Amino acid sequence: MFFPWEKPRREQETGNLLADTRIRAPFHRLMTLISGTAVAEKVLEECRRDIAELAKLGKKPGLAVVLVGDDPASRAYVRSKDKKCRDLGLHSVKLELPAETTQEELLAHVETLNRDPAIHGILVQSPPPKHIDEAAIVRAIDPAKDVDGFHPINVAKLALEDSSGFVPCTPLGCQRLLVDAGIETKGANVVVVGRSMIVGKPMALLLMAKGVGGDATVTVAHSRTKDLPAICRQADIIVAAIGRPEFIKAEHVKEGAVVIDVGINRVEAPGTEKGYKLVGDVAFAEVAPKCRAITPVPGGVGPMTIAMLMANTIKACQQAGA
Amino acid sequence: MFFPWEKPRREQETGNLLADTRIRAPFHRLMTLISGTAVAEKVLEECRRDIAELAKLGKKPGLAVVLVGDDPASRAYVRSKDKKCRDLGLHSVKLELPAETTQEELLAHVETLNRDPAIHGILVQSPPPKHIDEAAIVRAIDPAKDVDGFHPINVAKLALEDSSGFVPCTPLGCQRLLVDAGIETKGANVVVVGRSMIVGKPMALLLMAKGVGGDATVTVAHSRTKDLPAICRQADIIVAAIGRPEFIKAEHVKEGAVVIDVGINRVEAPGTEKGYKLVGDVAFAEVAPKCRAITPVPGGVGPMTIAMLMANTIKACQQAGA
Repeated sequence: MFFPWEKPRREQETGNLLADTRIRAPFHRLMTLISGTAVAEKVLEECRRDIAELAKLGKKPGLAVVLVGDDPASRAYVRSKDKKCRDLGLHSVKLELPAETTQEELLAHVETLNRDPAIHGILVQSPPPKHIDEAAIVRAIDPAKDVDGFHPINVAKLALEDSSGFVPCTPLGCQRLLVDAGIETKGANVVVVGRSMIVGKPMALLLMAKGVGGDATVTVAHSRTKDLPAICRQADIIVAAIGRPEFIKAEHVKEGAVVIDVGINRVEAPGTEKGYKLVGDVAFAEVAPKCRAITPVPGGVGPMTIAMLMANTIKACQQAGA
Repeated sequence: MFFPWEKPRREQETGNLLADTRIRAPFHRLMTLISGTAVAEKVLEECRRDIAELAKLGKKPGLAVVLVGDDPASRAYVRSKDKKCRDLGLHSVKLELPAETTQEELLAHVETLNRDPAIHGILVQSPPPKHIDEAAIVRAIDPAKDVDGFHPINVAKLALEDSSGFVPCTPLGCQRLLVDAGIETKGANVVVVGRSMIVGKPMALLLMAKGVGGDATVTVAHSRTKDLPAICRQADIIVAAIGRPEFIKAEHVKEGAVVIDVGINRVEAPGTEKGYKLVGDVAFAEVAPKCRAITPVPGGVGPMTIAMLMANTIKACQQAGA
């Protein structure tokens, strides 16, 4: 599996790894639509290769997804994760627990999964019902099985640039998109908009770490930032993780910038079949013409998140064998 | 003990806490020399108060400092920490081990200190001799006694904005200097120069966290940053943690900026009694006239680091009683 930040220093420095895919700046007027669907397929292809290798050793990566309650969006996410696992031929366990499950019951399930040698990755779908202490649940997951990368041990490993840890799937997917699109991060000015522990902070830590897909000069902006448009206009790369539909406008983006749109927002769309449509945190129509490269929504970061979950699960299985 | 980032949200939002000390922008031509010596004394005064409170409960904070080998600079640091403890009336244990101490022997000493109820803080002086795996030693320290804030659990707590953790003393001291000097960080553009886990990264995490002394728009710059002077000139606050003498020049600093100088570098000074002098990472003589406020070296961040070590040790003792 290719995780950019795990590349040995030697390869990083020669840069040969990326030479053939690197887009040259003079061509930036040819705006690139970065297809998350295509890069995700490439990641899944690597997954298939790794799964075949593991099969030769008699190993099969296993992922357990735990859902508490019956939130329809969460249920849909869990279903799609389960389906992706089965498509790849992973061992998949879907644990659907009633909304009234207690903290102790949930902890007992996590403990059982921690001990299960057929399970290499454990994910408790967020958000759980209000009576559950989510942080305590995350801490109860074996860090070696924490494929979501939210356990304190994995948070620390990211900050410490220890690549044995698991990085949250969404920022990991964003980094992979940049690398596969040939966008040089080294020395680039990146503005990450949003400071959550799910996306903003791990994204910043990943991009400022040494090595491929890192070495960027990273600014973290957020709700308290003054004159966000001016801050964003200094960016060679913008990662938008605000959670507000079409928040980043043309005025935020300098000519020739790269924009990664993490947002997935439902907005009403009367007259459509579903009555809503999905839009990102970026006002795509006005921003895209200014960009050297941009990710669409849907079909950008979304498919990468689930692909990186598969990749993390395989990594967990590989490391369990080490 | 007053750790800015531990203040309850309510106080943060009213801002009353700082109203009386806040310096108004129009006066920035009156350059303020931020005295680390004075603020450290204030912190130590708070320490004395807390120690008196703990004494009423029959408790006495204890710090163990472990030194392996006989590096003269390390020996001097350990001596000054020990002296500061004794001045305050803390229980102080100084463990001086020979350079040939093995990893296993050192781990055994750490384990003994972990179990000692009279010891609330443990610090292994860095750097240890080359045959010692420093990261493994840090991981062996009980996170509840890790007053240096380098244990993965404390790194994660900082990233997760969980104020029960310990923050590394130097960035904690820098934040306290800003707050006590009445420098508003909320919405300020801060450039941290340096991405180490000792200063740069924790400083960035602290300044971007929610609350007093935080809520800044933080940029982390480093050796791969392109056009560092231009990046720095956008900063309202610069934290220089590069480790290169007088690296930050007038061209890096915009008129009216605040500069915190973390560097402590020895440079030759022929003709002086010692033959060397201490300078910071900032070319003070040319930078200071442009600043609204600046820390000197010595007498800036240095005294704060040791004061925050005392403060962290007291916090560890208070939490051990909880």
